[in-house]
Amino acid sequence: MSDRTPVQNAELALLLEVTGTPKPGNVDRERDFADLRFEHFMAGAVGARPGLGLAADGEPVGRAFEHAVAGMADQSAGNTQFGALLLLAPLVAAAGEGDLTPAGVDRVVRGTTVADAAAFYRAFEHVDVAVDDPPEGMEPLDVRHGSDAIPELEAQGLTLFDVMAESADVDGIAAEWAGGFARVFEAAEALLADDGPVPDRASRVFLKLLAEDVDTFVVTRNSPDAAAEVQRRAQAVLDGEEDATELAEELVARDINPGTTADLVAGALFVALERGLVV
Amino acid sequence: MSDRTPVQNAELALLLEVTGTPKPGNVDRERDFADLRFEHFMAGAVGARPGLGLAADGEPVGRAFEHAVAGMADQSAGNTQFGALLLLAPLVAAAGEGDLTPAGVDRVVRGTTVADAAAFYRAFEHVDVAVDDPPEGMEPLDVRHGSDAIPELEAQGLTLFDVMAESADVDGIAAEWAGGFARVFEAAEALLADDGPVPDRASRVFLKLLAEDVDTFVVTRNSPDAAAEVQRRAQAVLDGEEDATELAEELVARDINPGTTADLVAGALFVALERGLVV
Repeated sequence: MSDRTPVQNAELALLLEVTGTPKPGNVDRERDFADLRFEHFMAGAVGARPGLGLAADGEPVGRAFEHAVAGMADQSAGNTQFGALLLLAPLVAAAGEGDLTPAGVDRVVRGTTVADAAAFYRAFEHVDVAVDDPPEGMEPLDVRHGSDAIPELEAQGLTLFDVMAESADVDGIAAEWAGGFARVFEAAEALLADDGPVPDRASRVFLKLLAEDVDTFVVTRNSPDAAAEVQRRAQAVLDGEEDATELAEELVARDINPGTTADLVAGALFVALERGLVV
Repeated sequence: MSDRTPVQNAELALLLEVTGTPKPGNVDRERDFADLRFEHFMAGAVGARPGLGLAADGEPVGRAFEHAVAGMADQSAGNTQFGALLLLAPLVAAAGEGDLTPAGVDRVVRGTTVADAAAFYRAFEHVDVAVDDPPEGMEPLDVRHGSDAIPELEAQGLTLFDVMAESADVDGIAAEWAGGFARVFEAAEALLADDGPVPDRASRVFLKLLAEDVDTFVVTRNSPDAAAEVQRRAQAVLDGEEDATELAEELVARDINPGTTADLVAGALFVALERGLVV
């Protein structure tokens, strides 16, 4: 078993995630987007580490997340791992409490406060994140307002868990928060049960997750049709009807980036490393 | 200017070094050896960080180095960045003292003690490092003895600087210690003066360093003839007579690994990041 701390494993999970290849539509060891390149993810991981350290030390999850995002954004490409950090902050907190289980992380996220929600909104001021318009009636809580939305959060007494639960049906990260991180833990077990180099396992579990459900980041940035197509074609790769590398090239060329699924893989790699995955 | 600390920049330097491609003969973003792969360098960088933190905090360089090596070795491939850490430990210490200059790092290495030398010898017990037989009369100080050599170090009153100075003519890392880290600082300026993505700059400065002098790791692991050939062919790449990627493929296939030159690039990336190189 490695001597790495939870924070070291979280940082390594971010690095291994971007290394796995092919991960159709994502920056990986073999593919860049024009202004979002491999090295930006490395600097993002290194920069995020102090914030993740706060989570491991029992600091409030919202504050830890905001700090991690600010550090992540200390490179020239902007948003690299916002969603991954939103998963990792509570997962690292649960590991810091010695209970990295669905029940343990569920307790962490249900224990968040209005102050955590405020920190989450402030995090959007550090970096541009692609988001959809809020649902009818939620306009005052549009995350794009950043800290201007905090009075409304406070007026309604919304915790970070409440905010996430509100978006669980349209956002894959929020769905994990609301649902005991079920897909993350399941993917972690798939990584552990697999064989071979870790980046190859990350690539395989990415395809499995991609085929299993629509990527909500593609829904938001591209369209529901594009997301449905990506899901269908990921299944075709699993069925041996399409080539993963060709699909990867095509999605990058079409600027279709299933980033939420990559975030889930980062979370799963963290859990698997904590459970003994050997690099 | 980035808010990264010296330790964060040192870790990022290790990550950017292995990302640069092509770096003929080395693991890089596009090439692995069979049992020494890209992900091992990532885990090595993450694991080395606490030891580098000791150097930044003013702890003795030898102890910081030994700790960094032990953390680096916490992955399944063994030695990934031993030489790079031997450069980074004093460079990070100099940065921690606010004087990351040839004079500053020279003061750090000349300030090392017998205890630092003992820690350096202990570091060889954490990992297998390819080394040559010691010169005539130096057999009791063969680094492969590990801590068994410590009584002899103490009897002779040898500091870590003394040990390095003794090997400066046969080891490229030791030569930096003995010579004010001249090649590291020169390569850092080349990185800063260059244009384009940082990994591309790392690749170019690697070729420049490789053409400039023989790689002592190739001398040790392969032969002086192989090292001379690598130097000559790196120059041919710079002259446009050979293709860098083809040379990279060939050297990996022949198991010729100019690791000392890669270590110099890691040191240079650290200095360049500290001086404002933007990722």
